[in-house]
Amino acid sequence: MASSAITPRPLPPTIIFGLVPIASWFIVRPFLEPVPSLPGLYTSIGFSVFALITTLYLVPALGPTFKTKLSGRDLLKVYTDPIPESLGLVCASVYILALILFIPFAFSDSLTMKSMQTPEGIVVTEFPHSRLAVYLSSLLSLLIATILGFLDDIFDIRWRHKLPIPIIASIPLLMVYFAEGGNTHIVVPLPLRFLFGSLVNLGPLYYLYMSLLSTFATNSINILAGINGSEVSQALIIAISVILNDLLYLPWPIGFHLPVHLLGSKAEVEFGGVWSAGMAYGSKELVERHLFSLYFMLPLVAVCSGFMYHNWYPARVFPGDTLCYVTGMAFAVVGIQAHFSKTLLLFFLPQIFNFVLSCPQLFGLVPCPRHRVPRFDGNTNLLHPSKALFMKPPSSLTSSVLRILAILKLVDLTTHPSTGVILETTNLTILNFFLVRLGPMNEKRLVQVLMCSQIAGSILAFTVRYGLSGLVYDGDRR
Amino acid sequence: MASSAITPRPLPPTIIFGLVPIASWFIVRPFLEPVPSLPGLYTSIGFSVFALITTLYLVPALGPTFKTKLSGRDLLKVYTDPIPESLGLVCASVYILALILFIPFAFSDSLTMKSMQTPEGIVVTEFPHSRLAVYLSSLLSLLIATILGFLDDIFDIRWRHKLPIPIIASIPLLMVYFAEGGNTHIVVPLPLRFLFGSLVNLGPLYYLYMSLLSTFATNSINILAGINGSEVSQALIIAISVILNDLLYLPWPIGFHLPVHLLGSKAEVEFGGVWSAGMAYGSKELVERHLFSLYFMLPLVAVCSGFMYHNWYPARVFPGDTLCYVTGMAFAVVGIQAHFSKTLLLFFLPQIFNFVLSCPQLFGLVPCPRHRVPRFDGNTNLLHPSKALFMKPPSSLTSSVLRILAILKLVDLTTHPSTGVILETTNLTILNFFLVRLGPMNEKRLVQVLMCSQIAGSILAFTVRYGLSGLVYDGDRR
Repeated sequence: MASSAITPRPLPPTIIFGLVPIASWFIVRPFLEPVPSLPGLYTSIGFSVFALITTLYLVPALGPTFKTKLSGRDLLKVYTDPIPESLGLVCASVYILALILFIPFAFSDSLTMKSMQTPEGIVVTEFPHSRLAVYLSSLLSLLIATILGFLDDIFDIRWRHKLPIPIIASIPLLMVYFAEGGNTHIVVPLPLRFLFGSLVNLGPLYYLYMSLLSTFATNSINILAGINGSEVSQALIIAISVILNDLLYLPWPIGFHLPVHLLGSKAEVEFGGVWSAGMAYGSKELVERHLFSLYFMLPLVAVCSGFMYHNWYPARVFPGDTLCYVTGMAFAVVGIQAHFSKTLLLFFLPQIFNFVLSCPQLFGLVPCPRHRVPRFDGNTNLLHPSKALFMKPPSSLTSSVLRILAILKLVDLTTHPSTGVILETTNLTILNFFLVRLGPMNEKRLVQVLMCSQIAGSILAFTVRYGLSGLVYDGDRR
Repeated sequence: MASSAITPRPLPPTIIFGLVPIASWFIVRPFLEPVPSLPGLYTSIGFSVFALITTLYLVPALGPTFKTKLSGRDLLKVYTDPIPESLGLVCASVYILALILFIPFAFSDSLTMKSMQTPEGIVVTEFPHSRLAVYLSSLLSLLIATILGFLDDIFDIRWRHKLPIPIIASIPLLMVYFAEGGNTHIVVPLPLRFLFGSLVNLGPLYYLYMSLLSTFATNSINILAGINGSEVSQALIIAISVILNDLLYLPWPIGFHLPVHLLGSKAEVEFGGVWSAGMAYGSKELVERHLFSLYFMLPLVAVCSGFMYHNWYPARVFPGDTLCYVTGMAFAVVGIQAHFSKTLLLFFLPQIFNFVLSCPQLFGLVPCPRHRVPRFDGNTNLLHPSKALFMKPPSSLTSSVLRILAILKLVDLTTHPSTGVILETTNLTILNFFLVRLGPMNEKRLVQVLMCSQIAGSILAFTVRYGLSGLVYDGDRR
């Protein structure tokens, strides 16, 4: 049993042999007549399937090499064998290489070519250099996030020092946005328009907002970690949610309706129609933005799926901080570049919940041990909520906060039987919260619960975005 | 004595206090009236000086952190204390960060703005998106070279496996060149024009050529290594040579002449003249290319100088492969993007000599030990040529090659006194060649000899480029 956990998980050859022809077809298809309306999307899917295959192979192949320099014990297992750490670097490398090789195809869509009429009346199709620059700056940010994540894995930077790291990684985004004279206006929600008007120019604050979005997306995934598969499953579900959202804006060849009025939206939202560009209502700009987002999210789903195969309980490899940094940065990139950062944040509901719940520990109100992962009971193979011990009686502020959290059933408190002073609290993370509410469970079940909460969060996000946002925003989008 | 070698070299505070105002002035100057004709160049110099200061500070500050994970013994010293390794990563990070922060200034020169007339007759100044994409793809290649160099340092990749690594780093260059429909024609030398015409389209071979240039520039610096300061001094002198060459093409406010006809050039070469753009003869395209090159070379000189201060004999820190990868890639980038790859190769004369001399060992004709650095004699503190031992008598081919090299006084052979069979040869590197020709010397002297040979190579390169190239090329440049 112990030895099976550290040998690589075998790869079913049928999957590989089945995937290669599928990937090849998607890559060849745009070169065949009739050319599909979005040829780049076919190529992107083909590249993503190859990225999946490569990740499935490379992660176990490079595991032993990584283990010589980077390994860790799985704290929630009975065995103590070292597990290769930081294999997220392999995912990041495959992901970024796929995106780089995709450069010549990213702007091949007829729809993205800018046609211009010269003074002589000749129509010239111009290469979209400006969008290429945006694409490249996104790649730069992803690469920097990868380097910094890997350095964090190697030198084990303290969390207070690493909080601002994603800001460094976001600099290329900001610089290119600035150099290109990017728009820093935001649309004001309807109830606030009497104060600010319909558009507000945030100016430098917009750049601060972009940096903070990168910081949030990266760190919020990084602190919801500790059990097998937790990091990569979050990234996978968020990426799939972003893809579903993007698909709503593509020019589908068929029209379709969703009964959005049932959710309280004032207007019926109509999707699709030939070249009516789905929710984009014929806006080429919106189609381009969501295509951009798809090009970054499809290979991300691929490498995350491939990695998850080897990181699933019981994990054969660990992702390291590298995976959290690169996936978080990828979400920030699409949210910023494709201008749907508010929608993106809605897909982070469990992360926001976890962050808010963690605040008393992050900001020193409650003692914060080095690891806040649930406690493992080797006899029953179950996880229990881990606890933070008060070495001295907590302040009245801390006590009040914890008692409110206990009333909300977010924590379990251990109090002194006679004085009622708080002696211990369960650690303030979403994982411990699940264990407090649902009782002890094994690690595999806990990651499944986490994934269900992430999916539920995304469903809620879509409901809010397309059902309720009509209450605070009109159709005006920038 | 032993302890002094591993404590960081102290920084004279006067240097720092003197440099900060200089750097600040260069950054502020472009904002003052009258605006200089090349404002971006001022900013670049200012950023470079700050990069120098940062490198001077950060290398010793981060040394202890690196030493915990990456350290090596200095093989050519009497002491055995571990020296922090891979500090080239700090140089690479400072270098790339400086280049990223420079993005908004890189295209601020009035001369680089493309003015366009709309059909209505209004002149619109258009942002040079295409050149931004080229700049960003260069940064991507540098970042990938950094990551791969660092991975090489950590996992110690075998040299046969790492030879093609720079090809991966050059992919972003190639992809963007391709996506932008880059020119793949080359100008044919005059003596060959009767065969090929004046221009030849290399097509895909041009991309192969670009990859190979990256591979050569990177690996040729990497194999000329092993003594304190050797890697960084090569990079420094090549970078300065490239800068001197670039300066010839800038629009100098004064005209000047060089007596190039004395070197055998048919035409007098005229430099300078107000806006006649030096050797660029008023070509805006050439000025832009060499400005691009300067923007990449100035901060490189800065970080290399800063690093050299700490890497100079006796070295307090080692560069690791990271420094060789990032500097080699930087040279390839400017050679390719600014279209002077042939001139660039001329600055690599000592590296080419070293590579050609090394071939019998690299390709297995002569045994190749793990380290080919000179042998250190602790009693005299002198370096002697290191030797490769033949375990069995060499083949007749190997013997012939070595005897020719011995006649050319490139190697010293040890032969069996009676049979004349070769028993040993000095290792085939330029460093051992210097020791064979000039006799044993200490490490500091040897690196000075290496630097002198690099400078002599650059002087020869300028002579060939501006004195003799008129014999095989006319003024046609693409």
